[in-house]
Amino acid sequence: MSEVTYVVTLQCRDTTGIVRALSNAVFAIDGNILENDQFTDPVTGQFCMRTRFTCERDVAEVSERLEGDLAAFTPTLTIRPETQRRRALVMVSQFDHCLADLLYRAEQGDLAMDIVAVVSNHGVCRELVERHAVPFVQVEVTPSTKSAAEDVVRELVERHGVDVVVLARYMQIISPQLCGELSGRIVNIHHSFLPGFKGARAYHQAYERGVKLIGATAHFVTADLDEGPIIEQDVARVTHARRPTEFIALGRDVERTVLARAVGLIAEDRVMLVGQRTVIFSQ
Amino acid sequence: MSEVTYVVTLQCRDTTGIVRALSNAVFAIDGNILENDQFTDPVTGQFCMRTRFTCERDVAEVSERLEGDLAAFTPTLTIRPETQRRRALVMVSQFDHCLADLLYRAEQGDLAMDIVAVVSNHGVCRELVERHAVPFVQVEVTPSTKSAAEDVVRELVERHGVDVVVLARYMQIISPQLCGELSGRIVNIHHSFLPGFKGARAYHQAYERGVKLIGATAHFVTADLDEGPIIEQDVARVTHARRPTEFIALGRDVERTVLARAVGLIAEDRVMLVGQRTVIFSQ
Amino acid sequence: MSEVTYVVTLQCRDTTGIVRALSNAVFAIDGNILENDQFTDPVTGQFCMRTRFTCERDVAEVSERLEGDLAAFTPTLTIRPETQRRRALVMVSQFDHCLADLLYRAEQGDLAMDIVAVVSNHGVCRELVERHAVPFVQVEVTPSTKSAAEDVVRELVERHGVDVVVLARYMQIISPQLCGELSGRIVNIHHSFLPGFKGARAYHQAYERGVKLIGATAHFVTADLDEGPIIEQDVARVTHARRPTEFIALGRDVERTVLARAVGLIAEDRVMLVGQRTVIFSQ
Amino acid sequence: MSEVTYVVTLQCRDTTGIVRALSNAVFAIDGNILENDQFTDPVTGQFCMRTRFTCERDVAEVSERLEGDLAAFTPTLTIRPETQRRRALVMVSQFDHCLADLLYRAEQGDLAMDIVAVVSNHGVCRELVERHAVPFVQVEVTPSTKSAAEDVVRELVERHGVDVVVLARYMQIISPQLCGELSGRIVNIHHSFLPGFKGARAYHQAYERGVKLIGATAHFVTADLDEGPIIEQDVARVTHARRPTEFIALGRDVERTVLARAVGLIAEDRVMLVGQRTVIFSQ
Repeated sequence: MSEVTYVVTLQCRDTTGIVRALSNAVFAIDGNILENDQFTDPVTGQFCMRTRFTCERDVAEVSERLEGDLAAFTPTLTIRPETQRRRALVMVSQFDHCLADLLYRAEQGDLAMDIVAVVSNHGVCRELVERHAVPFVQVEVTPSTKSAAEDVVRELVERHGVDVVVLARYMQIISPQLCGELSGRIVNIHHSFLPGFKGARAYHQAYERGVKLIGATAHFVTADLDEGPIIEQDVARVTHARRPTEFIALGRDVERTVLARAVGLIAEDRVMLVGQRTVIFSQ
Repeated sequence: MSEVTYVVTLQCRDTTGIVRALSNAVFAIDGNILENDQFTDPVTGQFCMRTRFTCERDVAEVSERLEGDLAAFTPTLTIRPETQRRRALVMVSQFDHCLADLLYRAEQGDLAMDIVAVVSNHGVCRELVERHAVPFVQVEVTPSTKSAAEDVVRELVERHGVDVVVLARYMQIISPQLCGELSGRIVNIHHSFLPGFKGARAYHQAYERGVKLIGATAHFVTADLDEGPIIEQDVARVTHARRPTEFIALGRDVERTVLARAVGLIAEDRVMLVGQRTVIFSQ
Repeated sequence: MSEVTYVVTLQCRDTTGIVRALSNAVFAIDGNILENDQFTDPVTGQFCMRTRFTCERDVAEVSERLEGDLAAFTPTLTIRPETQRRRALVMVSQFDHCLADLLYRAEQGDLAMDIVAVVSNHGVCRELVERHAVPFVQVEVTPSTKSAAEDVVRELVERHGVDVVVLARYMQIISPQLCGELSGRIVNIHHSFLPGFKGARAYHQAYERGVKLIGATAHFVTADLDEGPIIEQDVARVTHARRPTEFIALGRDVERTVLARAVGLIAEDRVMLVGQRTVIFSQ
Repeated sequence: MSEVTYVVTLQCRDTTGIVRALSNAVFAIDGNILENDQFTDPVTGQFCMRTRFTCERDVAEVSERLEGDLAAFTPTLTIRPETQRRRALVMVSQFDHCLADLLYRAEQGDLAMDIVAVVSNHGVCRELVERHAVPFVQVEVTPSTKSAAEDVVRELVERHGVDVVVLARYMQIISPQLCGELSGRIVNIHHSFLPGFKGARAYHQAYERGVKLIGATAHFVTADLDEGPIIEQDVARVTHARRPTEFIALGRDVERTVLARAVGLIAEDRVMLVGQRTVIFSQ
C-alpha cells in the first residue's frame, strides 16, 4: 500500500502520558509525524491535540491501533485520511457574498472541502449555486413549515455525511432541537461592533455612533448562547465620511473573509471546541 | 511680520456659501491655504471644516477678518497659530503605560502638545512624571474628598488654559457636573471586546469566551453615555494559548497606541464633535 | 432641471486663490459643495483638488463656468456628473481571481464603474466574463502579433471611451508606445515582498527566505519605471508552516483586495497623479 | 524538590521516532508536557521542536535523561528552567526609541528577559539606561578602535553569559568575524519598504515614491546576507499627506513594536534558525 497522510484529533481530560501514548502508537505503525499541535485548556482542563502523519497502513488498521493504545484516556478521537475531505452543507437566505466566496474558493482549490448542497429559504441564489454544479435545495420557512424545513436539513446531513453546516448569511433562527443535535457542527457569521449593536439595523446604529471599526465574527451556534464559541474575527476601518451603505459593503468584505477563514480551519480539522472556547491550531 | 501658519476649525449648520466665505476671507488677508478639509454630517446636518493656511497678519487681525466675514453662519470657530500648542492635563491612577507613552512622545516631538500637569489619586507615577519635568499633583479621592479633588482639576484647567483632559487609565468616575463643564474636552481610553464585556474583570471574561481580538477605544466622556463619541479604535489578535495576563499586556499595547493617536489628532485640531459622532480630519 | 451631483478634479501649479476661484464659481451656479479635498504636493509643487457638489445646471453650463473662472490657473480639469460612470477595460491572462472579484463587485453595486470589455491572450476566462454579460475579446500575443493585439486595445479604448485599463493579472508587457499613449490610465497589480524578490518564482523565493508578510501593490504603469506610482498596498501575514502554494493562495487574496480598492478609488476620481507619486483623496 | 517548568528546544535531521523518544524521556522523569510545537522544514529537512513541561527533577537529571535518550538523533538541544531567564546585551547609537521600549517592557514584566548591559558608541542614552539600573558601556568606534570595541562586546557576552545581542538601532556594521562568532545570536531591526529603498535616506526615497505602507523587519545578522533570516515584520499605513518627518516617526513606532515582538519570542525560546529561514513557534 502506498503512503497515506492521516489527520488525527484527540480531546480528553489532561493527564500525563497522552503524547507519549500517541507517539508510540504512530511509531508502532511506522508512521512519520508531519505536524503536531497540542494545548491544555486551563479553563476546562481539557487536553487537545491534532497530529498529521504519513503511514503505509490503511485507515482500519490505523484506527484500531490508535483507538486501542489511547483507550485508557477515553478520548474523543477523529481519524481521517487527508484525501477524504470534510463535507459542508451551506445555508443562505438572500445575500450571496459569503456563499459566492465559499463556492469560488472551493472551485479554486483554496478551500479543501466539499460543498455537498446549498439550502435556502429563497430562490435568488439558485443560479449561482447550480453554475458551480452544486445541488440547490429551496425550502419554505414559515411558522408552520419551519419544522419540515429542518427535517430537510437533517436528511441532507444524514445522507451526505455532512461534517459542518455553514450559515452563510442565513437569516432564520435554527431551532434549539437542531442546534442540540448538531452541537459543535453549525457555524455562523455575524457582524460585530465596538460597542455592540443588536438587531436588523446594527450597521445604521454603528454609523450613527461613529464607530471607527466594523467587524465580523465566525462562531459556533449553540442553543443557549447569544453568540457561541468564537472561531475567527476581524475588522475593517471606517471613517465618518462613509455612508451606511458603504458600512454594509465593507462589512460584507469582512464577513466573507472571516467566514472563509473559519471554514478553511474546520476543513483541516484545526478547530476544537472546549466549553465556551475554541482551540485553533492555525498555521 | 513674518509668515505664520494658522489652524482654523469651524462648525455650523450646513448651507451654501461657507467655503466661499472662508476662502474669500483668507484671500483678503493674503493667506495661502495649505490644507482644507470639510464634511457635512448627514445625521446632524452640521457642517465641519478645518483649514490650515499661512499668512503674514497677526492673530488679532486674522480673527477679526474671519469672525466678521463668517458671522452670518453663526459658527463655532477656533483660530490658532500652529506654534501656540494645545495644552493637556493628564489624569492617571496606578497603571502608567498610557502616561509613559504620552510623556515619551511629547519629549520626542512626535506629539505636538504641552502636558501642563499630571493629576493622580495615587503616588506611584510621581517619579516618572517629574523625570519629564512635568508637575505632578496628587489628590485624594474618597466619597468625602471627591468634590475637592475635582476642584483641583477645575483650578488647573483654568490656570493653565487646558484644552483637553486626558484620562490615561484614570480609574475614578468623573462627576456629571465636571463632565458637563468640560463637555467635548475629556478623553478616555477604554478596553473593548467583541462581544462586549463589562466591569473590572473584562479581560478575564474575554479570555474565558475565547475572543480572537482585543481592542481599545478612545472616546470623549459624556455624562449620559456609557461610552461617549468615539475618536479612535484598534485591535490586536490573540489566540487560545494566551493567558489572561498576556491579554492584559497586549491590551496595554493597544490602549497606549490608540490613546496616543487620539491625543495626537486633538493636538492638531483634527477632531470635531457632532452629536454622538466625531468627524476626524486625519492625514 | 433637477439636481445633479458633479465630481470635479483639478490639478495645477500651486498659487493663492484657487480654492476661492472654485468656490466662487460653484456659488455662482447655485451649487452646494458636499465634499472638498485638496493637497499641495511638496515634491512637485502641484496643487490637487477634488470637489463634489450638487447643482441644478447641466454639464455644459457647469463646465463653461468652471473652465472660464479657473482659466487663469491653466489647470487640468475634469468635470463629470456622478451618474456618468467611469469606464474600464480589463486585461487578463489565465489567473481569474482579480477579474472575478471586479466583476462580482461591479454586479453587487460596490464598484461604481462600467467594465466595458475584457481582453485576454487566453480563452480560459471567456465563460466567467460572458456570464456577467461583458464582451470578451481574445487576442493572440506573440512577437509577431503583439502590435496587432495592442491595436485591438487602442480601438476598444477609443470606441468605448475607456477611462482606465486595468491589468488584472495580465502577464504580457505593454509596449512603451501604448504606455505613453495611455499614460496615467493603466493600472497593474503586482505581488510585493520585504525584501523584494523578482521574477516568475517570487513567491517561492519569499518562501525560501522565510518572509512573514506577503503583499500586493496596485500601481500605474509607466514606460520607464519598473513599478510606477503606487495607488494602494496591503499585506497578509504568513508563517514558516505555510507551503509555497499557500503563499500563492494568500497572495491572490491580497492582490484582489488591493486591486479592487485601487479601481474603486479611480471609479470615484479619488486618485491624482503627480510626478512619481499619487495623491489619494480617500474617505 | 518542588515542581520546575522546563523549556526544551531541539533541532536535528528529520527522521521517525524523535517525538516518541522525547515524550518517552519526559514520561520517564515524571514530566507533564504543557506545550509542544514541532515543524519539519521542507527546504532544509531539519526537524525543529520546542517543548515546555513541568517536572520535579533538577536540571542536571533532566539534561542527562534527555541528552541520553535523544543522543541517537545527534540533536542541537537546549534545556532551561523557565525561571533562568535569557540574557540580552543591547547595542544602540543615538536613536533611543527601541531601547526605551525594551527597557520599559522588561521593567513592566512584559518581556521575560534580563538586559545585562547596554553598549553604545554615543553617550546620549546613558541617562535613560542608568535610570533603569542597567550598566551602560560607552565604546568609541572609529576605524582604529572598532576592533577594541568589539572586544568589549565579546568580553561582556562572555562574562554575562549573553544569549542574544540586540542591535536596537545600532548604526555601526558588525565585523564578519564577530558575526561569525555570534552566529544566530545577533538580532537587528531594519526599516523596510515596498519597493525596497537602500541607504541613509530610505524614508525620504519612500516618501518621494509615494509608498502607502512603511514597514520594519527584525532579522538575524549574518556575515554574508544583506538582510539575514527574518524573525518578525510589520507595516503601518501612510498617505501622501504625511511629511518625511512623519514617515520617520511612524517608522519608529513600527520598529519598536517589531523589535519588541522579536526579542520577546527569543526570550521564550520560540525562534529557531534553519538555513536562511526561521521557524517561529508563536502563541
